[in-house]
Amino acid sequence: MVDPQDNGRPRSRRLPRAVRERQILDAAVEVFGTRGFHTASMDEISEVAGISKPMLYAYLGAKDELFVACIRREATRLIEAISVAVETGLSPAEQLWRGLRVFFEYVQRNQAGWAVLHRQANVQGEPFVTELAESQERATAVIAVLLAQATEGSAQPMQPEQTEPFAAALVGAGEALVEWWFHHPAHTADGMAMRLMNMVWMGFGDLVEGRSWTPGS
Amino acid sequence: MVDPQDNGRPRSRRLPRAVRERQILDAAVEVFGTRGFHTASMDEISEVAGISKPMLYAYLGAKDELFVACIRREATRLIEAISVAVETGLSPAEQLWRGLRVFFEYVQRNQAGWAVLHRQANVQGEPFVTELAESQERATAVIAVLLAQATEGSAQPMQPEQTEPFAAALVGAGEALVEWWFHHPAHTADGMAMRLMNMVWMGFGDLVEGRSWTPGS
Repeated sequence: MVDPQDNGRPRSRRLPRAVRERQILDAAVEVFGTRGFHTASMDEISEVAGISKPMLYAYLGAKDELFVACIRREATRLIEAISVAVETGLSPAEQLWRGLRVFFEYVQRNQAGWAVLHRQANVQGEPFVTELAESQERATAVIAVLLAQATEGSAQPMQPEQTEPFAAALVGAGEALVEWWFHHPAHTADGMAMRLMNMVWMGFGDLVEGRSWTPGS
Repeated sequence: MVDPQDNGRPRSRRLPRAVRERQILDAAVEVFGTRGFHTASMDEISEVAGISKPMLYAYLGAKDELFVACIRREATRLIEAISVAVETGLSPAEQLWRGLRVFFEYVQRNQAGWAVLHRQANVQGEPFVTELAESQERATAVIAVLLAQATEGSAQPMQPEQTEPFAAALVGAGEALVEWWFHHPAHTADGMAMRLMNMVWMGFGDLVEGRSWTPGS
């Protein structure tokens, strides 16, 4: 039986859809992340993914849709990595520290993914900026839950009206620090995590003890 | 003498260039901020500015260039407002508090300007995203200097290698909190400033006393 798409490259067939999609997304993130959205070609992505171009379109759609799928996948992976690393049962400080370390380590290991998630998305404008904003909202919601859990047993656990804006600020601070890091690449992931830890924990540390600042204090 | 551009609207002539440009930028920020970049027309901007369309092009160029000039102007104004509010001589906490208050008050009073600076710039992609990134770098540099000055007399003044990443994180946190605020508009500018103050000062407060967090502490 001859597959009309067969071009002589070894290609595994009848893989589960999820596996195929992962292969495609891995290839697409790599190509988009290194070439940029405009220069990236569907030809190269299909080549790297080891899948025919018609099948590439069949699975994840045209270039725009594929890029949106990349943004969503990269955000989901990063959020999952942080959630897994932050084990309840540890002290609040230790939980935050683990979350921050995983964040910077993940970014370091997945620079193409970060480029897709941020730089390329911003450079391209819509519809990618909306997808990125939704990813940031998902990250904020997860981190708000983690902050609430982490401070549960504290003298002054964080309330939902605190955790959400704090989570939003933490996401913004983390993203800005990654941009700064790309301009100062000598710093290690742990060094970057330590900076953000010192900035926010030494803050959160006082808050969960019930000490808060008021004007004139 | 008849001005060929005269369309019957009262129009002051021979104004200094700086005044003219300010009028145009005020009008452009208002129109871009409310209509969005695509829907905004040079006709409407010239109408609101009270200047003929040829003169509008002569002063600040085509729509793209005008939008870039708007981003730059709005960023400069915000940075100046913060710099002016932060008086040396006050305590570090008071200086930070003033800077944060002015930031949120400025955003509240200039929502069209903020839209131009962030939402529209992000939605449109390049070349506006690069201009926005440059504005963020300028803001970071100024805030790094303010942080260094504010902590000068402290037991543990902040060093340049700390102030710059902290400033970058603070800019990112502030921008993310403004986005959160737009989704939760019941909060006051002072309330928002207080949230960020509690998050970062209670952090900075310990750092400038020489207490820093290390893993396992």
